[in-house]
Amino acid sequence: MSRFFEDIQPGDELVFGSYTFEAGDIIRFAAKYDPQPFHLSDAEAAKTHFGQLCASGWHTAAIYMKLQVAKAKELRAKRIAQGLPVAELGPSPGFDDLKWIRPVFAGDTVTYRSTITAKTESKSRPRWGLIHAENHGTNQKGKAVLFFKSTVFVERRATLRATA
Amino acid sequence: MSRFFEDIQPGDELVFGSYTFEAGDIIRFAAKYDPQPFHLSDAEAAKTHFGQLCASGWHTAAIYMKLQVAKAKELRAKRIAQGLPVAELGPSPGFDDLKWIRPVFAGDTVTYRSTITAKTESKSRPRWGLIHAENHGTNQKGKAVLFFKSTVFVERRATLRATA
Repeated sequence: MSRFFEDIQPGDELVFGSYTFEAGDIIRFAAKYDPQPFHLSDAEAAKTHFGQLCASGWHTAAIYMKLQVAKAKELRAKRIAQGLPVAELGPSPGFDDLKWIRPVFAGDTVTYRSTITAKTESKSRPRWGLIHAENHGTNQKGKAVLFFKSTVFVERRATLRATA
Repeated sequence: MSRFFEDIQPGDELVFGSYTFEAGDIIRFAAKYDPQPFHLSDAEAAKTHFGQLCASGWHTAAIYMKLQVAKAKELRAKRIAQGLPVAELGPSPGFDDLKWIRPVFAGDTVTYRSTITAKTESKSRPRWGLIHAENHGTNQKGKAVLFFKSTVFVERRATLRATA
């Protein structure tokens, strides 16, 4: 999140923000990417195991990304305003253990947060370090709805010294 | 895919279809869910490690879902036309080991397929069985771009007999 690999420590936690899944929004995403009845209309959802309109799991993951990128931009702007160097975020090799724990129903507000669990240096790419995190989405009742583990490449401060 | 748990066997493979990621489509998804420079413009992407405009990993996953749902509907309609009963697909508890193996650049065509790796009965939900699959996205050069393992609940034929 614009900090360098060396500045990030296991245990660091960051709240990205909250998002309310409105019915129209749920339906628009689903119509395009996940057109199953329980994501498309309340009446159709009522006939299924979900019982009411709920968001595609991929939608709840995409909103995590949206809020994560917005927070990264905010923190980056803050560091630039303070005259601090900003680390580049590298590609993400992927995610692990994604769980859609509970449905996200129309009107639910999900708060997303991330906790750093570990960091490892990349042997193959000396410019980067790997940051491992656990990511959580929690609804307005405090119940977990989304979980996944992520790994991202984050630039090392050593790179900065080498090129400065 | 509308077949019952009992009819699905490890080794079964299904090709869902192919999708070409046009630049405009990549940018529209990214503007909404993943507004990072390499997903928003060729000029900005050229300054990054990607070198050119490429799709958000979440976009490539959402298109998997789109094609998977379309294929499921097609197979369901076919079974209904043949007078066969159709199994309900239950909630997906999540997925595992998602890898964005290579970038998907503007103009790339990704073909998605799924291979059944295992099946287990659900102890807590006797109506359902769990189907485990490995899902692959491959570009027009035959190179892997996306991989993940999925688990879905699929209705058991036993349920059908019990309610018939």
